Amino acid sequence: MRYQLIISYDGTLYAGWQVQANAKAIQPTIQRALETVLRHPVALSGSGRTDAGVHALAQSAHFDTPVTLAPHRLRLSLNALLPHDIRILEIHPVESDFHARYSAKSKIYHYHLHLDPISDPFTMRYRHHVPGRFDRDKLQKAIPCFLGSHDFSSFANTKDVPLEDSVRTIDRIDVVEIEGGLRLEFEGNGFLYKMVRNIVGALLDAAASKITPEEIREIFEKKDRRSARFAAPAKGLFLAKVVY
Amino acid sequence: MRYQLIISYDGTLYAGWQVQANAKAIQPTIQRALETVLRHPVALSGSGRTDAGVHALAQSAHFDTPVTLAPHRLRLSLNALLPHDIRILEIHPVESDFHARYSAKSKIYHYHLHLDPISDPFTMRYRHHVPGRFDRDKLQKAIPCFLGSHDFSSFANTKDVPLEDSVRTIDRIDVVEIEGGLRLEFEGNGFLYKMVRNIVGALLDAAASKITPEEIREIFEKKDRRSARFAAPAKGLFLAKVVY
Repeated sequence: MRYQLIISYDGTLYAGWQVQANAKAIQPTIQRALETVLRHPVALSGSGRTDAGVHALAQSAHFDTPVTLAPHRLRLSLNALLPHDIRILEIHPVESDFHARYSAKSKIYHYHLHLDPISDPFTMRYRHHVPGRFDRDKLQKAIPCFLGSHDFSSFANTKDVPLEDSVRTIDRIDVVEIEGGLRLEFEGNGFLYKMVRNIVGALLDAAASKITPEEIREIFEKKDRRSARFAAPAKGLFLAKVVY
Repeated sequence: MRYQLIISYDGTLYAGWQVQANAKAIQPTIQRALETVLRHPVALSGSGRTDAGVHALAQSAHFDTPVTLAPHRLRLSLNALLPHDIRILEIHPVESDFHARYSAKSKIYHYHLHLDPISDPFTMRYRHHVPGRFDRDKLQKAIPCFLGSHDFSSFANTKDVPLEDSVRTIDRIDVVEIEGGLRLEFEGNGFLYKMVRNIVGALLDAAASKITPEEIREIFEKKDRRSARFAAPAKGLFLAKVVY
């Protein structure tokens, strides 16, 4: 039987979803807990990687097991075994052809910006602090540059992505007011390595009047990551939802 | 000239406001930063101690200096020197007879409870997780036991408080709904050592049907800390405001 997991985690102390050399990663931590409970080797397959320091409100993954299990009890057992910064929110049976990665229709990422002059001790692990000038109109005017289908090579750290594979579609980038700042919501059919953080970096430069929409379009044309701007820090980024 | 500071801090990594042996504390950390900027010895006097692990949204303190200073610039300098989990929110000149502790009319503390069955990686440093049964009616019925003036000996860790000094007045205990839980707001003219956390512990026992209002009144009568219940963990407690 195949099961889907919905997982929340604080990525601060992890090298990312996938195992990286000997660093502590999310996927192997959950996989080991599953193997402890189920008493057989498990392959836990996620919807995609999240980078070091990136968080998840609802990462999705699947695994197969011959064991007959009560999802609610397995969830309790896993949460008892896992460190507190990783929580299993849901477990439910899925069709045998469900695949956490290949069945996904779109993904939603949130990026949290804190715009007050003084940083905040209680949210600093989850928001990028931008205390300087920030022109919301200029942010809004830069957003359409990224909407729709584009070759996002210039906004990906492309080392492991072949160029022919770098067209992605972003359906929406919404700007939501939150206390002391903004949440940028990205929904698209897929995101290249560091693509959201590179786009946020360009949007921050636009809001700081360091770059124009015309210059952003020129960066797209170059199809070269080196022409883009800094990537916004990992700590502000959340994988919010995987849509099937 | 005397100045008042309004200070926010995440107490997770500190042994409390006041210096404790060789442990890292909030007050000496800020005092050292003031001395670095002002280039003279400073005595920073707070409204009261917060215990190890307790947070502050707006602790209040005062210091004297002969240096003529622009409060806004001093705030920038201090925040540049201080660790990110301590932030100076405001600095302003006050009358020479203002005293952070003795001028205070009341204090407001908040205690955050998380009542969902599954804990939350993103707020676990700032909320006490109570996943079990929780009867809000029984919580409400226990609150009046603590309102008004009482000898709170049974709800203080009294080792350094003489008994004749243990009458305090609580003006209000409000229960505010927050996402996934409750915020308990306490306002009173003063609080003994660990008094809020001991009261929260008793309220949690009431909500779990482990103790009745009548039994709480009996604990008051005994005037003995050993008759009270467990103290709720420090991490849920915030000094929210000092009222002058």
